[in-house]
Amino acid sequence: MTDRRYPARAVIRDVGPRDGLQPEEPVPVTDRIRLVEALRAAGVTHIEAVAFVSPKAVPAMAGAGEVLAGIGRRPGERITALVPNVRGAELALASAVDELTVTVSVSETYNRNNVRMTTAESEAEIARIVALAAAAAEAGGAGPVPVDAVISCAFGSPYEGDIAPAEVVALAGRLRSAGVTAVTYADTTGMATPRRIDDLLDAVEAAGGRPADVGLHLHDTRGLAVANAHAALLRGVARFDTAVGGLGGSPFARGAGGNLATEQLVALCDDLGVETGIDLDALIGVAHLIGELVGRDVPSMVAHHGPPRRLPPAR
Amino acid sequence: MTDRRYPARAVIRDVGPRDGLQPEEPVPVTDRIRLVEALRAAGVTHIEAVAFVSPKAVPAMAGAGEVLAGIGRRPGERITALVPNVRGAELALASAVDELTVTVSVSETYNRNNVRMTTAESEAEIARIVALAAAAAEAGGAGPVPVDAVISCAFGSPYEGDIAPAEVVALAGRLRSAGVTAVTYADTTGMATPRRIDDLLDAVEAAGGRPADVGLHLHDTRGLAVANAHAALLRGVARFDTAVGGLGGSPFARGAGGNLATEQLVALCDDLGVETGIDLDALIGVAHLIGELVGRDVPSMVAHHGPPRRLPPAR
Repeated sequence: MTDRRYPARAVIRDVGPRDGLQPEEPVPVTDRIRLVEALRAAGVTHIEAVAFVSPKAVPAMAGAGEVLAGIGRRPGERITALVPNVRGAELALASAVDELTVTVSVSETYNRNNVRMTTAESEAEIARIVALAAAAAEAGGAGPVPVDAVISCAFGSPYEGDIAPAEVVALAGRLRSAGVTAVTYADTTGMATPRRIDDLLDAVEAAGGRPADVGLHLHDTRGLAVANAHAALLRGVARFDTAVGGLGGSPFARGAGGNLATEQLVALCDDLGVETGIDLDALIGVAHLIGELVGRDVPSMVAHHGPPRRLPPAR
Repeated sequence: MTDRRYPARAVIRDVGPRDGLQPEEPVPVTDRIRLVEALRAAGVTHIEAVAFVSPKAVPAMAGAGEVLAGIGRRPGERITALVPNVRGAELALASAVDELTVTVSVSETYNRNNVRMTTAESEAEIARIVALAAAAAEAGGAGPVPVDAVISCAFGSPYEGDIAPAEVVALAGRLRSAGVTAVTYADTTGMATPRRIDDLLDAVEAAGGRPADVGLHLHDTRGLAVANAHAALLRGVARFDTAVGGLGGSPFARGAGGNLATEQLVALCDDLGVETGIDLDALIGVAHLIGELVGRDVPSMVAHHGPPRRLPPAR
């Protein structure tokens, strides 16, 4: 008998309205609101709904404030906005989000190309965002607005290649010292493997951390995203970013996978007995909805073939 | 630190020339020979090259004898023929194959629809094939020709649904008693999950068997094939059927995955330090070759994006 140490429950943050739609032709604000409502109806409580980025640089993310105003806020939910800098954080906090995500790459070159800052400059910017988030919350009377730092290229970089897990975990430690509430490790370019997941979690443990506090943001470039998620679940990781339909990443590359599809992870969790609170059948409906919004079939195989509990039609 | 109990070495049998091409428009014998030669050049030593089935029922498998004559036999290799019955076994043995694969489904309805026999009748047919294989070998002077029994629907059936792992393992035991040399569990309709892999291996161990003696034949219908292979490697399974390019299964269904792609498993094994003897770069070339032969892109993401050790081009 094998030892199966899965967490009892996993928190899945759907980043489909943000990471999924970001590389696509712009989808109207009303449809983006409809998408968030559909995710909610499927039981998704953590949603990265928008990014406050330059509409010139990322046209698909224009109208973030309107999306947030349209969906409103509900108790028990966490509606997140990605912010690349202090200016974005100010706009997001003015829209009363439940959480901010900020990004910094452990790859110096990737960071410079992505946000035109060194990694150290991004760390300083994140510290300023954390201070803003705390001040905004004081004004509102609620607790501080949590800030999740997403470390991109955490499993390798297109520029520097392999990056030592200890270096990645050291950056996470500095971010925590700067006041971020959570750290999420992102496989930005599909370099993660079950071994690299284990290596990173070993480094987390060596630094005194726990896999249960780790968040993972996985991409399916090489078809390994769900194997990586399973390897992480086996270690007790219980927090994942996924995108409904598996959109995101490089949608125009042949056979490309985007983000790990939310329905793929929910199907896996359902089968393993890991609770997610998400209704898989309803979620598969949302995968088809996002496919309609972007005008093509989503890459998710679970969306097209159903979960493994469902029997294919007899022939 | 996690416990990583991977096998030192895995044996990968490429079934691309058989399972991969079987549902396709027929590919000429000369091209099928070329495909086998390309697999050999990539270091693949176990190849299911042909099936001796009715050319009326499966036109793509016509000319099995010509393919076997064209590729010849080499020391250190195992060239396998799938045979559905005694007549197929006679033809295969006349062509001097190194191994026979036979199939029987643990799903009664699937077995009846597939070969018009009950499971018990298929077991009796397999016993006759085993006797033939032994007799043929006596005539040839070599050791007995090994017979690998592939149990289809081993992780669930489109007709009966879930099938108890103990029942699957009991069938394997009867087949071994009937003289088969090896048993391979096939996920014919993409029902396997990491949990079902663990459950089956638990049943194998409960019956006194070892995961190291188990063979797995995985399909990627729901994108779980490589996660299932990884879960199996973690338990010590070291024998897999895969198809170069990931062909097979239902190539016409939208987003369908066929067999686990050989290059996907080799990339995983390379990353885990599990030796396969296969050159991944050469194998990816074979994946593109089989794509040319069938006239479309193969589904394998590793074929299109390279293994995770290879860095994507900087943008």
